[in-house]
Amino acid sequence: MVIVMKHGATAEEIAGVIQHVESLGFKPHVSRGEECTIIGVIGDERPIEPEHFELCAGVERAIRILHPFKLASRDFHPDDSVVKINGVSIGARQVIVMAGPCSVESREQLMETAAAVKEAGAHILRGGAFKPRTSPYAFQGLGLKGLELLREAREQLDLPIVTEVMSPQEVTLVAQYADILQVGARNMENSALLRAVGEIQKPVLLKRGKMSTVEELLMAAEYILAQGNPRVMVCERGIRTFETATRNTFDINAIPVLKSLTHLPVIADPSHGTGKWELVPAVARAAIAAGADGLLVEVHHDPAHALSDGAQSLTPDHFARMIADVRRIAEAIGRTTCNRCAMQWSRLSAWA
Amino acid sequence: MVIVMKHGATAEEIAGVIQHVESLGFKPHVSRGEECTIIGVIGDERPIEPEHFELCAGVERAIRILHPFKLASRDFHPDDSVVKINGVSIGARQVIVMAGPCSVESREQLMETAAAVKEAGAHILRGGAFKPRTSPYAFQGLGLKGLELLREAREQLDLPIVTEVMSPQEVTLVAQYADILQVGARNMENSALLRAVGEIQKPVLLKRGKMSTVEELLMAAEYILAQGNPRVMVCERGIRTFETATRNTFDINAIPVLKSLTHLPVIADPSHGTGKWELVPAVARAAIAAGADGLLVEVHHDPAHALSDGAQSLTPDHFARMIADVRRIAEAIGRTTCNRCAMQWSRLSAWA
Amino acid sequence: MVIVMKHGATAEEIAGVIQHVESLGFKPHVSRGEECTIIGVIGDERPIEPEHFELCAGVERAIRILHPFKLASRDFHPDDSVVKINGVSIGARQVIVMAGPCSVESREQLMETAAAVKEAGAHILRGGAFKPRTSPYAFQGLGLKGLELLREAREQLDLPIVTEVMSPQEVTLVAQYADILQVGARNMENSALLRAVGEIQKPVLLKRGKMSTVEELLMAAEYILAQGNPRVMVCERGIRTFETATRNTFDINAIPVLKSLTHLPVIADPSHGTGKWELVPAVARAAIAAGADGLLVEVHHDPAHALSDGAQSLTPDHFARMIADVRRIAEAIGRTTCNRCAMQWSRLSAWA
Amino acid sequence: MVIVMKHGATAEEIAGVIQHVESLGFKPHVSRGEECTIIGVIGDERPIEPEHFELCAGVERAIRILHPFKLASRDFHPDDSVVKINGVSIGARQVIVMAGPCSVESREQLMETAAAVKEAGAHILRGGAFKPRTSPYAFQGLGLKGLELLREAREQLDLPIVTEVMSPQEVTLVAQYADILQVGARNMENSALLRAVGEIQKPVLLKRGKMSTVEELLMAAEYILAQGNPRVMVCERGIRTFETATRNTFDINAIPVLKSLTHLPVIADPSHGTGKWELVPAVARAAIAAGADGLLVEVHHDPAHALSDGAQSLTPDHFARMIADVRRIAEAIGRTTCNRCAMQWSRLSAWA
Repeated sequence: MVIVMKHGATAEEIAGVIQHVESLGFKPHVSRGEECTIIGVIGDERPIEPEHFELCAGVERAIRILHPFKLASRDFHPDDSVVKINGVSIGARQVIVMAGPCSVESREQLMETAAAVKEAGAHILRGGAFKPRTSPYAFQGLGLKGLELLREAREQLDLPIVTEVMSPQEVTLVAQYADILQVGARNMENSALLRAVGEIQKPVLLKRGKMSTVEELLMAAEYILAQGNPRVMVCERGIRTFETATRNTFDINAIPVLKSLTHLPVIADPSHGTGKWELVPAVARAAIAAGADGLLVEVHHDPAHALSDGAQSLTPDHFARMIADVRRIAEAIGRTTCNRCAMQWSRLSAWA
Repeated sequence: MVIVMKHGATAEEIAGVIQHVESLGFKPHVSRGEECTIIGVIGDERPIEPEHFELCAGVERAIRILHPFKLASRDFHPDDSVVKINGVSIGARQVIVMAGPCSVESREQLMETAAAVKEAGAHILRGGAFKPRTSPYAFQGLGLKGLELLREAREQLDLPIVTEVMSPQEVTLVAQYADILQVGARNMENSALLRAVGEIQKPVLLKRGKMSTVEELLMAAEYILAQGNPRVMVCERGIRTFETATRNTFDINAIPVLKSLTHLPVIADPSHGTGKWELVPAVARAAIAAGADGLLVEVHHDPAHALSDGAQSLTPDHFARMIADVRRIAEAIGRTTCNRCAMQWSRLSAWA
Repeated sequence: MVIVMKHGATAEEIAGVIQHVESLGFKPHVSRGEECTIIGVIGDERPIEPEHFELCAGVERAIRILHPFKLASRDFHPDDSVVKINGVSIGARQVIVMAGPCSVESREQLMETAAAVKEAGAHILRGGAFKPRTSPYAFQGLGLKGLELLREAREQLDLPIVTEVMSPQEVTLVAQYADILQVGARNMENSALLRAVGEIQKPVLLKRGKMSTVEELLMAAEYILAQGNPRVMVCERGIRTFETATRNTFDINAIPVLKSLTHLPVIADPSHGTGKWELVPAVARAAIAAGADGLLVEVHHDPAHALSDGAQSLTPDHFARMIADVRRIAEAIGRTTCNRCAMQWSRLSAWA
Repeated sequence: MVIVMKHGATAEEIAGVIQHVESLGFKPHVSRGEECTIIGVIGDERPIEPEHFELCAGVERAIRILHPFKLASRDFHPDDSVVKINGVSIGARQVIVMAGPCSVESREQLMETAAAVKEAGAHILRGGAFKPRTSPYAFQGLGLKGLELLREAREQLDLPIVTEVMSPQEVTLVAQYADILQVGARNMENSALLRAVGEIQKPVLLKRGKMSTVEELLMAAEYILAQGNPRVMVCERGIRTFETATRNTFDINAIPVLKSLTHLPVIADPSHGTGKWELVPAVARAAIAAGADGLLVEVHHDPAHALSDGAQSLTPDHFARMIADVRRIAEAIGRTTCNRCAMQWSRLSAWA
């Protein structure tokens, strides 16, 4: 923490701040400048907030120096974390594709779509049983019935399942069916839910809130990690901006930023990131080119009749073409999408 | 709903859309233009989403015509709703002030601050027992102990209490202590929580998410209203924008927009809306001048030692000066802040 | 400037930064912390940018401590600047209203609207002769003919004129007709234009860009001041956010922020700030309650036939009612809208 | 245009709107719904704005159906436009790289950097002689001297030049030195400048404003095209959002959106799009993977001593590694970066 005193702060005010710094167990370090005095706060600043100092008399502002997260940080854990699920390794050389319908709607819909995405090369099946919706009048998911259909698909097709959990009471239930628990964008700041998924030992896919910074996303991951669950993946899924041509603005910068700040695997969701199926393949390619470890993609065998998110769902045919393109991009940067490939893994460049 | 066909859509495509509209129970109305054909969808469009049509062959886009909320709408309920709590009427002529500390920290802190805000003219006491925090390492509130202290203050000072509830399991507990349940900005889209507070009969103060639109705020209110709880107040508390000079950007436009779209009382929170105590009085005056029905303000007897939100808390002295200013503004537009005043209530102007 | 070294920066890297700081004529001040070393840069940091240091080996980031503007700063000029124009003082106790049509369209339109706004109490007449438009196919203003009509209105009604200038070559011409030159939001970063209006001695009304920060607005003012023209007024006119219910989001926080950072008069434009005439009176009242020194309001005698911005223009009748409301708000905070009033001027509160 | 009447609009109000539509030369088409009446406006709506109708009595809102641009639209010109400059074709199969320093600072700096980028495979040399800066105290470019150095580099290295022009008076001058005139982000809405570059016959690289939508970018292109200059390229360079981890948020979605809406070549600027050199290679790869026709990249032989934008400049060595990566990405989607390659050009997929 660095505390900047106001232009013209008195010696008494400076002494007051020094005393306050010391009373909190930190060591002050004073630099007297021409226009203002700066006081460095030496010690682990994470538990305190800048405002503690901004209210002292004579203080202009206080600035945090360290990132507020620790367990999620690459400083703390320099090597990439790899999350393993039934033989699938996320965060390693292989690019992982999670695909399936937005919502589970019926056995036919799920099985048809699931078989198609497996055939095309997806590694993990996604599907929503509990659905967060803006309108109370919209379809809210099949609930338990949806979870049972997902288990059926899992067993028939030997595909791990990722599905959303929306409230702390449902965590134990959903964990009985899912291989990966998804915390959705609307719940990224739901600390009760974050703690609940931190207390069980299941991998968690944590989506960035549409209004959340990269730092806040990593603080949400920190909530889960701090409860003792190390298997967290973070997911960029588009942020809200002034642009209205697309549903969200996929933050491509966040991919390399996250890879540099955290050791956790980074997944990209081009379906929500764009909101339009026509744009999904281009943004999926881009995300992999930028270094994402995997994709989360909505696919529906009949998007025009989907009960949710039809506009951003690919048909199985489009998905198969997308995955072929993504494979070529992955190979261009020394990665792969398939388990069988024997290509050498060489990082694109140390600084990329 | 209006469906705009693509430039060059074929007669077959147009026929397909017409058939789809009819199959959903709506009546289509076709307008053939020079550059494109438009199909009006006649019927109650609220339960369907534009994307249902955007996926039909030949469709450029579909545009919703009606607002998606109903119970929250002024069309549905033209008169102002007034929420009554222990003799305090919110949403009527009187401007209501809710004030108190961000978090309940100790008996001394709460009692001292509560007595001061009552003395200055506040009508309702605010204080957090369960606190949502960005960092898992920050103070998370006193929990049950905090609720008990709030009850004590309520009884000693005869002030109704507003406090936050953060998860569905805690609703019953918090409702035993609070007169008003607050749903915080981070939980505005937590539908499990919205349903839970809709199922009990306690007034709810629903805060706008920091990156939620006015329409989404009213859809969240709709979730609560649809469960049968009509006593909902909505609260503007600043939105996230590119501006970094303040913690949030208080959306002053939202005050008259909300007053025109909904019959629910509209409360303003200038503390979170600015994030800086020096700016709170100016924005509090502005919110009342723009037509807000009340204020939610953070006050702390010793902000420099507050465990949360100190930077945006007024001292009791500053609060007393703020409330005096607000009273003059309220009177300038024909409202009042006190129960005893006998001024005539005359709306400022029919169109304001 | 404060330079934060990376966790684990070597002694050599620290020495390199110290040397770089000294080579630029600054004095370094080193604080060695537990997790990182901080180097204070002592001297006038305004001409250098943080990135000069961020590129040195071992540097995590560099943080500017001082505001980058000087002539516009209240530190530099503690008292309010008052801009005087033909007997009107802007930035003093009196709240000033500038009103008139978006564009000058014809003699009849201008004269009718101008007479009405004068009658209602406006102090200055606004009207556009050169119009910046998003579409090349939209009405671009009457140009010189518009300026001549403005001069005619000015002489007939004895009202000073504010009108926009859009390119450096037109400054001399427009200055022959206008009492105040307006630099529009789209040109706030047009440095050639800022320099040109800084080189003549005419008051300038500088509008904030729709996606510019308060600091950038003051840097744009600094461009004008640095050329030797001290008569600058800054204008908040709404910023672009994710909210689509209004054309822009009027940044009410910016009013007290600007009043604290700068000595220049602060004007509010609720017409562009909302984009909807129904919202203009509420936001006009709010802006004055928050401390603005004046208003810029679009008025048209027949908005439905206006060639630009009709949707946000008040009719003369609505304008007269708005100005009456604004007068009461001004008086509630100890200001006035009229010259003849003899009320005592007492600042609302020293800290407001 | 579609006009939505208010719930409860009277027959008289509907008749009034119909009359207004007809008076403007359009044909009205009325659909009476259960909750509201909709009036379609048939004819070329581009020259009129929705607000013309929103002010008529009884109108809820008016919605534009067609895009407001025409010459820039792919509907108007379905095939890709290819801009040819001294043997370089932009907008065809080959991916074009424009690279060089932010500002021209000296002969040595320019020549050293220019030789290095040519050696690495750049096709066009960028360099700023007139620089737009936020601070009036920052380096503003070498001006004419900078242009002369650029001409020298052009002749020595046989590389076409792209450089910025900032005001209408300078267009003729800059055009004598440059092969491509750049209109910078801050001037995207400077209509006087857009008209001036539309009046000469030089290719124009038009950068998106940091606050501008894709539609506004295409309207700015329309200004240039409407003056008779068809050689326009549009450039995505990052937008301003709430995220502060990067200088701007590169809008990767805009790449496929622009490719679908317009026939003009689309260039990506990952230097401004991220503001940090470490992120430039990842975002450059992403932009090409998403379908951009070229890159604009800042390179400096000694970024730590650059007079502007050092933090986002690559060294020649990093640039060479970036261009090798980009080449592999280009090839993965069936494009190339070099002239000599003889690979077949096959679009990745018709719908991509």
